Amino acid sequence: MTSERPSVLQPEMPATRWGDPDHATGLPDGVRDLVGLVFPIRDTPARADVTVPASRLAEAQLAGLRAIVGDDNVVLDDAVRRQRTRGKSTPDLLRQRSGDLGDAPDVVVRPAGHDEVVAVLAYAQEQRIAVVPFGGGTAVTGGLVADPAGLAGVLSLDLGRMRGLLALDPVSSTATLEPGLRGPEAEALLAAHGMMLGHFPQSFEYATIGGFAATRSSGQSSAGYGRFDSMVVALRVATPVGEVRLGASPANASGPDLRELFLGSEGAFGVITEVTVRIRPLPEVKEYEGWRWPSFDAGADAMRALAQSDLLPTVIRLSDESETAINLADPESIGGEGDAGCLMIVGHEGTPAAVAAKKAAVTEALTALGGTAQGSGPGEAWAHGRFNAPYLRDSLLDNGVLVETLETVTYWSNRDNLYARVKAALQETLGEGAMVLCHISHVYATGCSLYFTVAAPGGADPLATWLPAKAAACEAIVAAGASITHHHAVGTDHRPYLSAEIGEVGVEVLRAVKKAVDPAGILNPGVLIP
Amino acid sequence: MTSERPSVLQPEMPATRWGDPDHATGLPDGVRDLVGLVFPIRDTPARADVTVPASRLAEAQLAGLRAIVGDDNVVLDDAVRRQRTRGKSTPDLLRQRSGDLGDAPDVVVRPAGHDEVVAVLAYAQEQRIAVVPFGGGTAVTGGLVADPAGLAGVLSLDLGRMRGLLALDPVSSTATLEPGLRGPEAEALLAAHGMMLGHFPQSFEYATIGGFAATRSSGQSSAGYGRFDSMVVALRVATPVGEVRLGASPANASGPDLRELFLGSEGAFGVITEVTVRIRPLPEVKEYEGWRWPSFDAGADAMRALAQSDLLPTVIRLSDESETAINLADPESIGGEGDAGCLMIVGHEGTPAAVAAKKAAVTEALTALGGTAQGSGPGEAWAHGRFNAPYLRDSLLDNGVLVETLETVTYWSNRDNLYARVKAALQETLGEGAMVLCHISHVYATGCSLYFTVAAPGGADPLATWLPAKAAACEAIVAAGASITHHHAVGTDHRPYLSAEIGEVGVEVLRAVKKAVDPAGILNPGVLIP
Repeated sequence: MTSERPSVLQPEMPATRWGDPDHATGLPDGVRDLVGLVFPIRDTPARADVTVPASRLAEAQLAGLRAIVGDDNVVLDDAVRRQRTRGKSTPDLLRQRSGDLGDAPDVVVRPAGHDEVVAVLAYAQEQRIAVVPFGGGTAVTGGLVADPAGLAGVLSLDLGRMRGLLALDPVSSTATLEPGLRGPEAEALLAAHGMMLGHFPQSFEYATIGGFAATRSSGQSSAGYGRFDSMVVALRVATPVGEVRLGASPANASGPDLRELFLGSEGAFGVITEVTVRIRPLPEVKEYEGWRWPSFDAGADAMRALAQSDLLPTVIRLSDESETAINLADPESIGGEGDAGCLMIVGHEGTPAAVAAKKAAVTEALTALGGTAQGSGPGEAWAHGRFNAPYLRDSLLDNGVLVETLETVTYWSNRDNLYARVKAALQETLGEGAMVLCHISHVYATGCSLYFTVAAPGGADPLATWLPAKAAACEAIVAAGASITHHHAVGTDHRPYLSAEIGEVGVEVLRAVKKAVDPAGILNPGVLIP
Repeated sequence: MTSERPSVLQPEMPATRWGDPDHATGLPDGVRDLVGLVFPIRDTPARADVTVPASRLAEAQLAGLRAIVGDDNVVLDDAVRRQRTRGKSTPDLLRQRSGDLGDAPDVVVRPAGHDEVVAVLAYAQEQRIAVVPFGGGTAVTGGLVADPAGLAGVLSLDLGRMRGLLALDPVSSTATLEPGLRGPEAEALLAAHGMMLGHFPQSFEYATIGGFAATRSSGQSSAGYGRFDSMVVALRVATPVGEVRLGASPANASGPDLRELFLGSEGAFGVITEVTVRIRPLPEVKEYEGWRWPSFDAGADAMRALAQSDLLPTVIRLSDESETAINLADPESIGGEGDAGCLMIVGHEGTPAAVAAKKAAVTEALTALGGTAQGSGPGEAWAHGRFNAPYLRDSLLDNGVLVETLETVTYWSNRDNLYARVKAALQETLGEGAMVLCHISHVYATGCSLYFTVAAPGGADPLATWLPAKAAACEAIVAAGASITHHHAVGTDHRPYLSAEIGEVGVEVLRAVKKAVDPAGILNPGVLIP
């Protein structure tokens, strides 16, 4: 097939906020009432009166880049560089809003395809220019903040022109996608063939295929469709020393699985230029429902029982008591009838027969485990608002409320210990007025993720309020022996904690691979590798 | 828990044959009749009149090793070294039978645990002695044949004393196993807790946990329980530069997944000293049945449909027309009622309710796809004889028949092309008198394995008959763009073909990792890495 391209492109996000300004709704009254009781409301508008620092690249270097990708695709405009400065973590947004544009790239380069990426990398290696791959700009752990020490400057390699469906194999049920495709664009291209990928992270509307692969993203349907890395069967990667194509077969014994070395490599080992993924028929039926549990422990034990019986639905997520209470207080939300306990969302997708069979088995199991079905109301409410949280965060930040999330993952037997340690660390550093909410949204036979949301008075300097709390949470995660991140990636924010997780020999292995594929150290320097 | 050890140990295998001599049954009359019609029967007895070459290690080096593991665990005996010479491929057996013991290790060292492995590796690095990890000795691709060029000699690191169940976590459903445990020993230890691993490769009775991990083994229940690598959640590995512990959580975004770098590393990156795996409750019900398909294509398409509907049973395997016909001709075998076509074995394991539900859904799907149920007879016959093929190979070799297997894996859309190319390559090199049989025994949503069995007149020099056929098959696999191995590993036999599969950059990455963890190049030199 010739490459198919999306007919509708997702817009770019503003530099200081999430999403599409036309979709921002402000602070719902219910949330305003709730938050107003707790925090003083004040305004923290974004600053537009600052300019991006001048590019550090020489005119000859810009000319060299123009010779590769064309004049129109070497961009120095203030707005374009500003939009590609940092990602969308709360610290990123706070820094952008404050007018701190110190991490702005020196130039934005937009290659048309794999060959131009290869050429740009070779040129950047020769000129010693740092290269930061840029997809949707949704990074939340500092993965877009390269350290150009010793290099000529920072080149933001914008993959936005690489937005094609390159191949679709209906027999093998695979599709080959370019890295710049946003979630909805990829799904639209596949839907035209009756197929889907089924990867729906919170960032779905803006994040890209390349970013999903480079950060080991995991979506809200991971129970049914798997993590993004588990969907990938083949990769094409451009490195400064040449290209690598991996994935001659779905699974094999041809030595170490090098796909797993480039998945999660966050731009430090190369630029992913093609991703071949397993696809599935579009589901004919989608049914989401709520379940009520007497406690977080009871709900988590039920998730564990389903996972260990290989009886997982497509979607399963469980809010702790605090998050359930907040949801109940918000009339826009997924709350149920107001009784205590914890709310679980269970979703089934597929053919009518498969959904009916799985739903019957899951319902029987959850009922036997002590759950109470709440009907489709909470489920539909969740599905309706599933991508809205980042808009709400902006509105809360506007009103002086510090809001941020962090996540981790561990084995089931360590779940409660990890939960208690991280919650205590956040509560202790942010003070009793802070809200610390948690949910489980990704489960495995042997363990689960924990996703924390924090809301606290921002104070005069919300960044200074947050950073010690984040550090305390990370230290609690390390002390609990858990992973520093389940699906947000390492970036620069988690880099100090990676050695504790993979050990000194593990770090040396990463450094050795880095040196082999990036001898000049131009690929996202300072990201990922301690 | 304190380490639990198996109450019954599997015996060692003879140097020149498979398995337990007491279980060898000779050539069944049915096979004798079949083979006798095709090939001249002649005797190729094993030679016991040759001795293993003298050890190349200095007395001081042996003393150094004795200081680490004790006098009794540094073994120079002829029989022990002979038994640890090569693995159990047909070329291995033919060389052993011919009296060629040139690849014998210079010493066999038996460490008691992780710390002794670390100490042996440090000493071997200092003394520049090649180290070959030895588990069950079931390797079939030359993984036990290290090249000691430039080194003092070869040390066979026998992990047979490291046979403990170190930990069992019933909440997380994981168990931590030592590498020297054979399949039945590991299952017996887990069964005492009501649990199982569920990994049943052909080599199950002799192969070890460490070997399963180091070679990315895949078992006969892979459709239900997954490949061995997919069961592994954590690893402890001893390397000459120190230990590495991986697997802080089931799945995460903490950078590249380094577990996947040590899985399949075949002793070249370190010695796996602990493996933590997902375990499951022992199945209450096991039901195996036969299905008949009009053709290999029809049966393969049905497997594909099940895999792509996420409706796989625990066991599913399909013989091509030739293999089905051979099975029908053997009265000991899994043949059905003698009609043409292809036989599929379908097995369900689990709770009565889960088996009933899955069996009903699979039966409905297979019937709709054109399969004909054959009842439990063929299924039970397969289950009864599932580990017997290597004994039959010995008996055929005794009678002058060359028998060997090889396997590969590709995407569904390339299945028929790969099948035709490999079959033609084998048939053309071995001549029209040869039998080339094939089955599919491991399926994925996006592809499947192909497992070939070849029987041909051995001639005066069966090794010289086989090696060109094997080379032709490997070249056909490479030309078809498939993986050089699905579950037998790279070893030395497949090493020449790895570059074609992972590319030059991929090979450089492996070399860089090797250099980082094994700077002196003592770990299984000549194995895996081109």
